[in-house]
Amino acid sequence: MSKLSWGMIGGGEGSQIGGAHRVAATLDGAFTFAAGALDIDPEKGRDFAVRLGAGQDRAYGDWREMLDGESSRPDRVDLVTVATPNNTHFEITKAFLQAGFNVLCEKPMTTTIAEAEEIVAIARESGRLCAVNYGYSGYPLVRQMQAMVAGGELGRVRLVVAEFAHGFHADAADADNPRVRWRYDPAQAGISSVVADCGSHALHMACFVIGQEVTTLSADFASCIEGRKLEDDALIAFRMNGGTVGRLWTSAVAVGRMHGLTLQVFGEKGGLRWAQEQPNQLIWTPLNEASRILERGSSELLPAAQRASRLAIGHTEGMFGAFGNLYANLAEAIHAQKEGGRPDKQNLSFPTAEEGLHSIAAIHAAVASAKAGGTWVAVER
Amino acid sequence: MSKLSWGMIGGGEGSQIGGAHRVAATLDGAFTFAAGALDIDPEKGRDFAVRLGAGQDRAYGDWREMLDGESSRPDRVDLVTVATPNNTHFEITKAFLQAGFNVLCEKPMTTTIAEAEEIVAIARESGRLCAVNYGYSGYPLVRQMQAMVAGGELGRVRLVVAEFAHGFHADAADADNPRVRWRYDPAQAGISSVVADCGSHALHMACFVIGQEVTTLSADFASCIEGRKLEDDALIAFRMNGGTVGRLWTSAVAVGRMHGLTLQVFGEKGGLRWAQEQPNQLIWTPLNEASRILERGSSELLPAAQRASRLAIGHTEGMFGAFGNLYANLAEAIHAQKEGGRPDKQNLSFPTAEEGLHSIAAIHAAVASAKAGGTWVAVER
Amino acid sequence: MSKLSWGMIGGGEGSQIGGAHRVAATLDGAFTFAAGALDIDPEKGRDFAVRLGAGQDRAYGDWREMLDGESSRPDRVDLVTVATPNNTHFEITKAFLQAGFNVLCEKPMTTTIAEAEEIVAIARESGRLCAVNYGYSGYPLVRQMQAMVAGGELGRVRLVVAEFAHGFHADAADADNPRVRWRYDPAQAGISSVVADCGSHALHMACFVIGQEVTTLSADFASCIEGRKLEDDALIAFRMNGGTVGRLWTSAVAVGRMHGLTLQVFGEKGGLRWAQEQPNQLIWTPLNEASRILERGSSELLPAAQRASRLAIGHTEGMFGAFGNLYANLAEAIHAQKEGGRPDKQNLSFPTAEEGLHSIAAIHAAVASAKAGGTWVAVER
Amino acid sequence: MSKLSWGMIGGGEGSQIGGAHRVAATLDGAFTFAAGALDIDPEKGRDFAVRLGAGQDRAYGDWREMLDGESSRPDRVDLVTVATPNNTHFEITKAFLQAGFNVLCEKPMTTTIAEAEEIVAIARESGRLCAVNYGYSGYPLVRQMQAMVAGGELGRVRLVVAEFAHGFHADAADADNPRVRWRYDPAQAGISSVVADCGSHALHMACFVIGQEVTTLSADFASCIEGRKLEDDALIAFRMNGGTVGRLWTSAVAVGRMHGLTLQVFGEKGGLRWAQEQPNQLIWTPLNEASRILERGSSELLPAAQRASRLAIGHTEGMFGAFGNLYANLAEAIHAQKEGGRPDKQNLSFPTAEEGLHSIAAIHAAVASAKAGGTWVAVER
Repeated sequence: MSKLSWGMIGGGEGSQIGGAHRVAATLDGAFTFAAGALDIDPEKGRDFAVRLGAGQDRAYGDWREMLDGESSRPDRVDLVTVATPNNTHFEITKAFLQAGFNVLCEKPMTTTIAEAEEIVAIARESGRLCAVNYGYSGYPLVRQMQAMVAGGELGRVRLVVAEFAHGFHADAADADNPRVRWRYDPAQAGISSVVADCGSHALHMACFVIGQEVTTLSADFASCIEGRKLEDDALIAFRMNGGTVGRLWTSAVAVGRMHGLTLQVFGEKGGLRWAQEQPNQLIWTPLNEASRILERGSSELLPAAQRASRLAIGHTEGMFGAFGNLYANLAEAIHAQKEGGRPDKQNLSFPTAEEGLHSIAAIHAAVASAKAGGTWVAVER
Repeated sequence: MSKLSWGMIGGGEGSQIGGAHRVAATLDGAFTFAAGALDIDPEKGRDFAVRLGAGQDRAYGDWREMLDGESSRPDRVDLVTVATPNNTHFEITKAFLQAGFNVLCEKPMTTTIAEAEEIVAIARESGRLCAVNYGYSGYPLVRQMQAMVAGGELGRVRLVVAEFAHGFHADAADADNPRVRWRYDPAQAGISSVVADCGSHALHMACFVIGQEVTTLSADFASCIEGRKLEDDALIAFRMNGGTVGRLWTSAVAVGRMHGLTLQVFGEKGGLRWAQEQPNQLIWTPLNEASRILERGSSELLPAAQRASRLAIGHTEGMFGAFGNLYANLAEAIHAQKEGGRPDKQNLSFPTAEEGLHSIAAIHAAVASAKAGGTWVAVER
Repeated sequence: MSKLSWGMIGGGEGSQIGGAHRVAATLDGAFTFAAGALDIDPEKGRDFAVRLGAGQDRAYGDWREMLDGESSRPDRVDLVTVATPNNTHFEITKAFLQAGFNVLCEKPMTTTIAEAEEIVAIARESGRLCAVNYGYSGYPLVRQMQAMVAGGELGRVRLVVAEFAHGFHADAADADNPRVRWRYDPAQAGISSVVADCGSHALHMACFVIGQEVTTLSADFASCIEGRKLEDDALIAFRMNGGTVGRLWTSAVAVGRMHGLTLQVFGEKGGLRWAQEQPNQLIWTPLNEASRILERGSSELLPAAQRASRLAIGHTEGMFGAFGNLYANLAEAIHAQKEGGRPDKQNLSFPTAEEGLHSIAAIHAAVASAKAGGTWVAVER
Repeated sequence: MSKLSWGMIGGGEGSQIGGAHRVAATLDGAFTFAAGALDIDPEKGRDFAVRLGAGQDRAYGDWREMLDGESSRPDRVDLVTVATPNNTHFEITKAFLQAGFNVLCEKPMTTTIAEAEEIVAIARESGRLCAVNYGYSGYPLVRQMQAMVAGGELGRVRLVVAEFAHGFHADAADADNPRVRWRYDPAQAGISSVVADCGSHALHMACFVIGQEVTTLSADFASCIEGRKLEDDALIAFRMNGGTVGRLWTSAVAVGRMHGLTLQVFGEKGGLRWAQEQPNQLIWTPLNEASRILERGSSELLPAAQRASRLAIGHTEGMFGAFGNLYANLAEAIHAQKEGGRPDKQNLSFPTAEEGLHSIAAIHAAVASAKAGGTWVAVER
């Protein structure tokens, strides 16, 4: 397959997420960086884009310039990644979709449900791909879980337990640090902090793995550090459209926890446990049998997990590999789009605008429930 | 110190809990088994008691006979352990306390809040000891957590996360097995199943470690196997009288989890993590520092933990040692009682009737909240 | 079964190993403490024995007094545990065996090979039981490994890797502490330090589990702290009489390791891994399949492991349970001896005098090999 | 800094090691793929090179063509990676060094000691960089270990324990599979199998971390599967030029072990433990203190480890990041070379030809010792 051309908005020099996208997009050689509007400072952005390999004429000063420039080219980029501040996601994603580009947007896709619905509608109309970077769903063993559930290996899923706990906002002395403070300021962060920032990843993974959506939920929010106007810890009970019961705990004050994103799935015929910090092992317990340790790279994994691995068993591919899988899936879909064929359905595992919308709707429902004293609230769709 | 004499009601031959009590009571040589009404079958009970070393005259056919017999002896037992079916705890404990015996009762102490309040009142009036076997609080590193929190090592505790998940009631084909079925039959099990059976241990440990009580809670109960009238999975958000936020998940359908009793405590100055299945390590993370692995038996532990250990570092003492610590603490208190002295306050770490009452009140509140759709409910006291 | 009567020599008040034996012997109610010569100080020893429940006439001042006293009684003790300093094991064990007692001797059974051979010969002639306390072989999952290997689950065992590493003799500033120093003084400790003290446990476990003996070995000894005349670290390659290749590392200077006793067994059809510090899990990897986590207490374990467990799955029984299994096995053998029957062969898993001899022979061979620059040396038998 | 141009020999389409090099070289944007002779089949190689972005004129059919072509260009590649079969490393590396190229050679650098010495000499004379891909030394926490030891954090290092055990050559039924068989055929694999293939990585890491070389060693080799002419398991005791004692176990028949590369370092003042399969945590135990869990990405790490990280704490960068660090270090050295400056010495952590030679000398010594029955053999230098 020929290489696809790729552009990015945001993710400038020194940005971690930008670096992760660059590695992920080029990991398998599917994409070449061709265009970018990488920085809030136009000059810095142009300079960096050139150094990354964009031609001078495709090193843009801002996203509007890039939209104009790329729209008028015959060799326009095949995919645009949006890695700008959260409150700009909607506007940029919308504009590029409407102009006929495929988009991979950082999460959260938008700030409001209405905006998210608009993106979903536009994406549908445009026939373009709109993906949202719930990138942890790209881990091979997350794909394995999804495939095992879809294949009936666990029977009906009764219970899903998701967790994303870290402790990096626990220092009261550091609470006024700008790096931290904006996250608890509704003017900048919106209606939710740790649920939107972290809990949404765990919830997405739960939905992705068991193939269901949240219908109703009951939430408790806490602000453990005085003066915070948004939650730094939350507990959410939920129910899903396939009947599964859900539990979610997320925290930013769990001192000692690093990137505590874990998923447990319990069905009629077995259970699964996975943790992002040790992504190479998946614990599978068939009912009434000993637990088994499934290893990334093992030949006994299902095809969806095998395809998502590059290195031999026992090595770690890490987050680069996980994000890279989203780009690999997008590449296959874009090739199909360009060549009029159909992509292998099993390779279309990237999170979609619908999933981005569902995530935002669930966050809003959680906020409403917490404000209403834990009342069960329906997730709008 | 001279040996104390000990009696047990229930815990007959083949009973696991009875065996654990016998080992625990005699582990440090503090108690000698002297009297018992061990079995629902009087003859079996008498025979087993004699084989365990009771004199023929102290091998009783039932608890009333034992109450009469021991009450009239000058060398009456110093402590009675009640290990009978749950619905008899109240009656027996009450009778023995009123007759002036010290009692260690299995959990739950009673079935209703009113009964539990009565036990608390009787215990106070009688001046006798009334302990409840939340035995996992006897693990040395649980004592360490309690002492660290009490000593201010974590600063104000913001958040406590307790969990007790197992998967041994997950087999639908086994749901009618009498061993399992009674636990989900309100007529036999009362108002709650997994919360009363397992969650109560996790909640007790949270209260014990941080030295607070639950004031209000919001609960979600689920019955994951069709036909169950009581919950086999629950999620509870709570608040405590010292301002701590709490989260509790408990489950009996978590296939692959064995005895998943864990506690995480997060304060202003650090965090703690402990798991009952690997009881010899406590993870302590001082704020902004690397996590440390505290080992049972280490000389850097606090006195409360040191006193609760018998073996050199690196060995496992297990549940026998944990339960044994409750008996050791009771022995010291009984010696003080007999000799008119005062026990070392640090050694009085056994769970009391007040804690038994609190546990029952919390279970009732959780049931009420779950029925009321997650409404926050006050825990009666 | 009626209770057996039990005596101990050594293991006085405050001794950890004495406490462990008392718990282990009485854990299942099989033995009652009846006689003892517990302390180097006769008065202290007598006093402690009485407090532990021995009659005044069976609270002895020293082992010779106990030998005389017990030999002349019709109700002599059924088993004598020898828990005195190492250099007295031979003399006491020999005397009690010759007088017709069953003996459980702490390891090392003797100081020299000649003495060990003498004990083996005497035990055979006497028809009495002579056991040696390689107590870690009593862990249920060690029994499981042994039974799996014996049952052919692994096919021919190609390789066994044993390890026992701790770091408690690593503080140079503490090297002159009497608690540590004697272990590196040949006059007190004999010809070997960490190999005899720790390595021998790992080697015994390897032999026990795979049912073979060491035939030849090549050793490297190191003294990592200046001035030590005996090894504080050793590496040993060995071959066994069933063709298995062996590797052993043992250390007393491995700072951060606690009680690092581990065993790995690799055969044609699978592999096993177990660690004493987490004794409730055994990792079993069938060839070309996922690893499985076998849990103590699981109903899928083999009978030898099931019999060695007391508590439900997920609990920890610890070292008390492991040592208790040796006593349980001895109790069954003694009952058979007394009643003329035959014990269930599967219950005779306690380490024997032959194993004590083999261990000492292997230690001597290792010393000889290390002195000879790693030359392969035959283990005498 | 401007981008450097990079070429590769070997590592054709479908080759895992080739893919890892491509990701690693481009991970930080330091290198652009500019030229290659990627395949034994010239056409396939040229085609793949073009698809990877090389110009048609720099897509070579074999390494000699590439040597000619690049030598005559003014914009010749700044670095050549040699990822061909082992027995060609010497010839190619030698030729490119002599022609003035910088080379990164896959391990083993050569087949014989004489060849390795020649490479070392040529590299010195040429003034070019010659690195060898002991890529696991690029893990951030391996760098942390190295820096801690160099900084005296452990005091004098007494003992280093290295291990690399896997079980992927354990299936006797698979032993004739060409993928496996060549590794045990001296005609193809040379004088050693698992020691050269795996043990050498562990040994290199030990040397790298503690900054010493092996002076003498005693080895035991075993062939656990019948018919194998080379070892599939080995145990090696060694001594280092700074006085450190060493232990190494390596195996290819350890069923259940995946990529069991671990390092333990024990010094006067503390101990360290690290495992490649969980590369984000380093256990550090200061003498007489609790063990600490050092996390990749933590701000308390030393600069050498911080520089080697790209992602926030809690994420995994995996092998791509580790190999990428070697390329990053090479890039800095090449820039210094080109610009006449001096590279930051701390960034020159890539393994050198001297280390490649040392590794080969150690392998030869191990073979000699094993053949001589474990005799201690000096490592030639």
